[in-house]
Amino acid sequence: MKRVFLIAPLLCVALLAQSGGGPQYSREGKLLLPADYREWVFLSSGLGMTYPNDRPPANPFFENVFVDSAAYRAFLKSGSWPDKTVLVLELRNSETKLSINKDGRVQTDVAGTEVHVKDASRGGWAFYGFAKGATEGSLIPKTENCYSCHGQNGAVDTTFVQFYPTLIEIARSKGTFKDGEK
Amino acid sequence: MKRVFLIAPLLCVALLAQSGGGPQYSREGKLLLPADYREWVFLSSGLGMTYPNDRPPANPFFENVFVDSAAYRAFLKSGSWPDKTVLVLELRNSETKLSINKDGRVQTDVAGTEVHVKDASRGGWAFYGFAKGATEGSLIPKTENCYSCHGQNGAVDTTFVQFYPTLIEIARSKGTFKDGEK
Repeated sequence: MKRVFLIAPLLCVALLAQSGGGPQYSREGKLLLPADYREWVFLSSGLGMTYPNDRPPANPFFENVFVDSAAYRAFLKSGSWPDKTVLVLELRNSETKLSINKDGRVQTDVAGTEVHVKDASRGGWAFYGFAKGATEGSLIPKTENCYSCHGQNGAVDTTFVQFYPTLIEIARSKGTFKDGEK
Repeated sequence: MKRVFLIAPLLCVALLAQSGGGPQYSREGKLLLPADYREWVFLSSGLGMTYPNDRPPANPFFENVFVDSAAYRAFLKSGSWPDKTVLVLELRNSETKLSINKDGRVQTDVAGTEVHVKDASRGGWAFYGFAKGATEGSLIPKTENCYSCHGQNGAVDTTFVQFYPTLIEIARSKGTFKDGEK
């Protein structure tokens, strides 16, 4: 029995580590892409989303969004994101007429990755951009449009919860959903 | 310390239960919808996929597919699905022009759910259909087209791994990907 009790806490640590332990950075301040983000909680996927002034893409991307489990569980309780939240936006190319799919679109390879991190020790929310296949991402300067657009239009704390259908009612019930967003 | 060792195994059980403990049925043999499937591993999402003889839908669904963590981890090692695998297909309605999205489509409410279960104790793979909002699903008769279509066209063991981009190379490397599928 003693052995079981000794192994079980180690197993727990391993399971919790898989759920993400907050953002990790290189010595140069680059963000490390979480190796296991595809096992995180999926929030939603759009296809070919464009914002005002964008032109519709000829070959649209799927936009998959994942969040670390700890931040997700905190959001379910509070309707807001805790410090160290990591949201991964994975852009995937799309195809039609793949295998027996005749119309519509399916997901193929990764076209790019962006990560949105809430880290009070580094000045709050920040975006990091990853080149295709890269495991380290560079800080996107805080003067870029993405910051002002998320600040103005994000339904909860600069994030686009209006596009995450399972979280909308939670945020509304907790009073954290910004007025004016449907 | 004793208390820590006693609590830790209980915590582990709770964490493992969240990852799905295989299919659960009612006394009448209906499949219970896993309450936490949105926290399972996301495999992919298509939009408006149609098969031969289908007509393209006017308002296409997103097709989100989730698998329980235990089956996912087994697949990473073997390229095949273990007994008790549960795959959830969640159909979501889509909208355009929601919030600041101008083109493309985003996901909204659940339109329907289907679950694909591998359970040797009940004759192998089976599909269960859930009415909108239902928590119990009925067995889809094995004479229905979905069984023969999945059997003929599923790249791995009657499942459409050809549409799950993170699993394709794993199945190929393990030799479980059916020839003839791209």
